[in-house]
Amino acid sequence: MSKSVNIAIIGAGLVGSAFINQLKSISPSSINYNVVLIATGSKALISKEYSPLDLSAWDSSLKASTSAALAIPEILAFLSKSPLPTILVDNTSNADWAAAYPSFVKSGISIATPNKKAFSSDLDLWNQIFDASSAPNGGLVYHEASVGAGLPIINNLKEQIQTGDKVESIEGIFSGTLSYIFNEWSTIAPNDAKFSDVVKVAKELGYTEPDPRDDLNGLDVARKVTILARIAGLEVQSPTSFSVHSLIPKPLESVSSGAEYLERLPEFDDEMKKLKDEAASENKVLRFIGKVDVPTKTVSVEIGKYDFSHSFASLKGSDNVVSIKTARYQNPLVIQGAGAGAEVTAAGVLADVIKVAQRVGA
Amino acid sequence: MSKSVNIAIIGAGLVGSAFINQLKSISPSSINYNVVLIATGSKALISKEYSPLDLSAWDSSLKASTSAALAIPEILAFLSKSPLPTILVDNTSNADWAAAYPSFVKSGISIATPNKKAFSSDLDLWNQIFDASSAPNGGLVYHEASVGAGLPIINNLKEQIQTGDKVESIEGIFSGTLSYIFNEWSTIAPNDAKFSDVVKVAKELGYTEPDPRDDLNGLDVARKVTILARIAGLEVQSPTSFSVHSLIPKPLESVSSGAEYLERLPEFDDEMKKLKDEAASENKVLRFIGKVDVPTKTVSVEIGKYDFSHSFASLKGSDNVVSIKTARYQNPLVIQGAGAGAEVTAAGVLADVIKVAQRVGA
Ligand SMILES: NC(=O)c1ccc[n+]([C@@H]2O[C@H](COP(=O)([O-])OP(=O)(O)OC[C@H]3O[C@@H](n4cnc5c(N)ncnc54)[C@H](OP(=O)(O)O)[C@@H]3O)[C@@H](O)[C@H]2O)c1
Ligand SMILES: NC(=O)c1ccc[n+]([C@@H]2O[C@H](COP(=O)([O-])OP(=O)(O)OC[C@H]3O[C@@H](n4cnc5c(N)ncnc54)[C@H](OP(=O)(O)O)[C@@H]3O)[C@@H](O)[C@H]2O)c1
Repeated sequence: MSKSVNIAIIGAGLVGSAFINQLKSISPSSINYNVVLIATGSKALISKEYSPLDLSAWDSSLKASTSAALAIPEILAFLSKSPLPTILVDNTSNADWAAAYPSFVKSGISIATPNKKAFSSDLDLWNQIFDASSAPNGGLVYHEASVGAGLPIINNLKEQIQTGDKVESIEGIFSGTLSYIFNEWSTIAPNDAKFSDVVKVAKELGYTEPDPRDDLNGLDVARKVTILARIAGLEVQSPTSFSVHSLIPKPLESVSSGAEYLERLPEFDDEMKKLKDEAASENKVLRFIGKVDVPTKTVSVEIGKYDFSHSFASLKGSDNVVSIKTARYQNPLVIQGAGAGAEVTAAGVLADVIKVAQRVGA
Repeated sequence: MSKSVNIAIIGAGLVGSAFINQLKSISPSSINYNVVLIATGSKALISKEYSPLDLSAWDSSLKASTSAALAIPEILAFLSKSPLPTILVDNTSNADWAAAYPSFVKSGISIATPNKKAFSSDLDLWNQIFDASSAPNGGLVYHEASVGAGLPIINNLKEQIQTGDKVESIEGIFSGTLSYIFNEWSTIAPNDAKFSDVVKVAKELGYTEPDPRDDLNGLDVARKVTILARIAGLEVQSPTSFSVHSLIPKPLESVSSGAEYLERLPEFDDEMKKLKDEAASENKVLRFIGKVDVPTKTVSVEIGKYDFSHSFASLKGSDNVVSIKTARYQNPLVIQGAGAGAEVTAAGVLADVIKVAQRVGA
């Protein structure tokens, strides 16, 4: 009585590779996961007859492949004719792929993805995706890893709402990079760490994007908060339609390189130190947080101050944390742990794939 | 394209009533949840033709019902002939029901339950249940609410393992009652609270069983730890097959009533105070915890000491918390929040019912 699904994997970077290797390691199971396509921006492995690709050396096969990159409509046409229920696993951060989800879902193809783009861009796209999914024969859409990687945040929040709970507020630290920076810089035990030095160390440890400003502008956090707010029922138009605090000093927004930004960042250490000392004088630490308040319909990304005894204050390393207050959880439900990293992200995507396969597999 | 399932609800106490009311409030949805049976220890409402019962006044209908309690084999026979996929929702804490799960699951009936008994008694029963479930045509078995009520612990742990993660250790506070008692008694800021006084207040607030010894003997925690350890792969024979610390002083184990126990408890306050002071001198608090260590195959229920900066030390109210360390989460995954209460427990059961219906609904 085993079930089968066909799987198309788009993107084989950090997360995509980890995903394929995890998928290999779980088979054989009671479900046959037949991978019929692996595509990156430049290469593709495709099984035109929908027989499962051999994954044993997928990496070198992909490198050696002479099949050029496939256009999205070609892939849609191919998957639409799949003889088995099909799951599209989008492991890119590509906006064109995100924009194409409604067409895939309308064709009955289900989606599992860590790609935030589809869920945090224009509200229109969100509505198109979920309208298509709830239409007869629409595909399922799972995106656990779009917030907090493998942490059980998104699916659990959706379930709370499905069972009739009412979300009141959501508050959390959604960037591993900014979690690390603030946890090192603003601590319960007094320390002399300079903001610019901590950013430099984070960059050296590989915790930041190549240009650290891509983390410090707050946009990634804004995207995650947009997703959570929409699940909680707020009609957030876009991740720039609410107040997002940028940690990049105005004069450094336009400097041409990340290196120059890092070089000049110390000019602003005093300003940051003032904020930190002020918080410390109230027995508080600073954390870079995203916040959703449902009754007042406010969404924001900001520097928050937390009592030494608050769970956000004792956060360690680059952990993410989310605190969800609902009608039933007046003392909030708190989930904490690694919110980035290829393995935990891939595991979040794979858990979604398993759930979809259990529901649609034939 | 809506799906349908038949549902049989056993037990309509605190959790059972909340469950039925939540189920009413979520319908109509894309799934038809047809309740065909509600049974308590003394009464039953049954729809012999499998047409959905009218739930609008289920409570008074049940009270007014003249149909006597049904025996388990009668219910099995009735549900085995159900024309739709069927979910048994066991909202009792009854051991006979637990023992009957294998027969139901073999007949293709799925189970969703907060009842710990089936999963924490003899290992044999556990094996029978999950062997039956993985056999062709076996029913599905979900029991999220058997540990931590509605907190996303059980299903998430199973998913982590399914995706290939390796559990190293699990540690947590699994009793709302004992969480409250220890959070009030052993605090970061020094306090003079006597253990016996805190137990008395807990009893007055309705946080304990009628006889508080039923919480303080540690057995409920041992049952939950048994469940988690088994999921993590340890073959725990029974909840009494490992070291369980009882908080009941030996001389009070045999006193005849809870009242007498409470009266004599102050005799042991000095002993408890010594433990607490010792911990405080090391900047630690005491917590009553369950622990699973996979490499050494050890399971225990004990009083643990935690640094003031540990997340267990800042726990509030009667929250549960679990910390799961795996190959992928070397900095543990932590989940915290209300781990008891009729509404959150019922929501955990209902979320399981929804998942089962999505998988088996026809
Ligand atoms: N890494 C993490 O810790 C983490 C955590 C949470 C969520 N995520 C999310 O997971 C996703 C993947 O992240 P990653 O770290 O794996 O990124 P990555 O290493 O940069 O890999 C991206 C992959 O997508 C492919 N790709 C890009 N555009 C494509 C297109 N148009 N068609 C087909 N393939 C395309 C790339 O192929 P080429 O190399 O040929 O361009 C590459 O294989 C992103 O959405 C990210 O936000 C990542
Ligand atoms: N309450 C919580 O906060 C919580 C939290 C987590 C898990 N749980 C679990 O949830 C379950 C239900 O708890 P509860 O608080 O709702 O208990 P409860 O209020 O005592 O209700 C138990 C229900 O089960 C029925 N029952 C007992 N034996 C039965 C039998 N042989 N056949 C049919 N019905 C039977 C009882 O009917 P009669 O009245 O006719 O005997 C009653 O309706 C338990 O397993 C408990 O451990 C509860």
